[in-house]
Amino acid sequence: MNFDMILAAAARLDGHARHTPLLSSPFLDQIAGRRVLIKPECLQHTGSFKFRGAWSAISALAPEVRDCGVIAFSSGNHAQGVALAAKAHGIPSVIVMPADAPALKIENTRALGAEVVLYDRATQDRDEIGESLAVERGLTLIKPFDNPFVIAGQGTIGLEIAADAADLGVTQAELLVCCGGGGLTSGIALACATRAPGLRVRPVEPEGFDDVARSLISGKIETNAALSGNICDAIITPHPGEITFPIMKSRCGPGLTVSEDQALQAMAQAFLRLKIVAEPGGAVALAAALYRGDALEGDTVIAVVSGGNVDPAMFTRALATL
Amino acid sequence: MNFDMILAAAARLDGHARHTPLLSSPFLDQIAGRRVLIKPECLQHTGSFKFRGAWSAISALAPEVRDCGVIAFSSGNHAQGVALAAKAHGIPSVIVMPADAPALKIENTRALGAEVVLYDRATQDRDEIGESLAVERGLTLIKPFDNPFVIAGQGTIGLEIAADAADLGVTQAELLVCCGGGGLTSGIALACATRAPGLRVRPVEPEGFDDVARSLISGKIETNAALSGNICDAIITPHPGEITFPIMKSRCGPGLTVSEDQALQAMAQAFLRLKIVAEPGGAVALAAALYRGDALEGDTVIAVVSGGNVDPAMFTRALATL
Repeated sequence: MNFDMILAAAARLDGHARHTPLLSSPFLDQIAGRRVLIKPECLQHTGSFKFRGAWSAISALAPEVRDCGVIAFSSGNHAQGVALAAKAHGIPSVIVMPADAPALKIENTRALGAEVVLYDRATQDRDEIGESLAVERGLTLIKPFDNPFVIAGQGTIGLEIAADAADLGVTQAELLVCCGGGGLTSGIALACATRAPGLRVRPVEPEGFDDVARSLISGKIETNAALSGNICDAIITPHPGEITFPIMKSRCGPGLTVSEDQALQAMAQAFLRLKIVAEPGGAVALAAALYRGDALEGDTVIAVVSGGNVDPAMFTRALATL
Repeated sequence: MNFDMILAAAARLDGHARHTPLLSSPFLDQIAGRRVLIKPECLQHTGSFKFRGAWSAISALAPEVRDCGVIAFSSGNHAQGVALAAKAHGIPSVIVMPADAPALKIENTRALGAEVVLYDRATQDRDEIGESLAVERGLTLIKPFDNPFVIAGQGTIGLEIAADAADLGVTQAELLVCCGGGGLTSGIALACATRAPGLRVRPVEPEGFDDVARSLISGKIETNAALSGNICDAIITPHPGEITFPIMKSRCGPGLTVSEDQALQAMAQAFLRLKIVAEPGGAVALAAALYRGDALEGDTVIAVVSGGNVDPAMFTRALATL
């Protein structure tokens, strides 16, 4: 896993992933008490950064392997990223989802061209179902974060930030990243280590689900006590990845946490001042930029808004904080 | 008013206005029954395309004229565009607004650095107030659309669309533009006439406020019967401009109209599929792309989303259509 893999991913993604702009607003600068730049990956295909990693991993497969198709376990952003990237490559994709996943998510994933296989969480083992399907059909498993090509794909965001921030004269800043398993954080950190070493990459997590922050403190992989019970569901994972954690350990931190209310308020500010739609888990880095100034250094902060797949009811709840 | 003025405006805006991306979603293609590309100018500074025209006009002034400051009549997007562009140039701006304008708009315009002068609609004459201020202080009036430099600034959107659509292989398409006084429409039409002659520029207006569509049919400037009573307030003007209309007459049309419900539904789809915030008047072109397929030709349509300055209550109303 090295910088050249990110450059190679960028070449494969060229013309397929969107180069998202850097946004800003004087009103957000005022709240934060420093300059704030926002990287809106909610504007990426399928509404989250996950499309980059999925495309990177699928495009890195040998054609004869790729043509057999891919499989992923996800009911969220990774599922949509894999489905659309597979469709664009003209290959089949199978997405394994719990039968009780929201109907809209199942429908959306199917509409993006995937075959959705449902399993019963109470009686069936997800991994067993996936493995037997993979063997039967020769499908390649695309993991959501612990895959070097996925990490390299997310790292292309770091290349764009490094270049676009430098164009704005920014080479020293805190760079806050919404963090689940660490694919996005570690990819961006690897890219910036070479291209923008003055940007300090810091993972942001929901309060009470700060496995990465604690792992960075203890120096070993820590786990979350719970895996549900927070609106930032898209970035709640049991623990950092085996590939992502060593990268984060050597290049990232310290971690930050935000409350659910802060995430909702950041969603509302993104609506009001940036005209973008952020989901709760996708808004935690912006929330830290705006409301955790006490824990930040320097005069500039860059925040990645990682996704915008939020239902109208939750979005309305965020707007009510205004 | 010619193409070279748009190139000159682009040079002045370079590094100051955002180059907004072209967005798309397979779900929108499905609704429209053709390929849909979206130019999200809601992501421009101050949340609308108006920043471009304001910057273009202010930067085109001789320094000694510019330094005296500028003045504009507006309670909406043009006010914010002028205020921020003036502030960035380090010059004073005066925005004349009715005293009964929403408090938040007044506050926002002040926060962007403008001096807000309020007048009483019942007892005072706006133009008189503006003129006496302009003479007294040597302020230059920045009109919202009937100014060649403003039109040239909006025309830079056409340059970006022409280049970015060509990168996607699109050189033949309907290009739908939200239309008030016609600054945006005429600027884009002038740019595309040279750079992308296969794009047919068509103004989109709210039903019942279709002065431009009717003017294009009759060949002379027609007026609207009413100036209020529609949620698309940002694009309701008495009639097309004296400079913009001849350009539109020779290069644009036929016009399209959409209902308020269609505008709200387009806002909801922009939320759901593009993760952007559109205001009602900013969503009419997308609404026509999605719901007026009967009146469109060809396999590709490009829609400009011109602004996103909408209050939470109206946005919630749009989400309720989902």
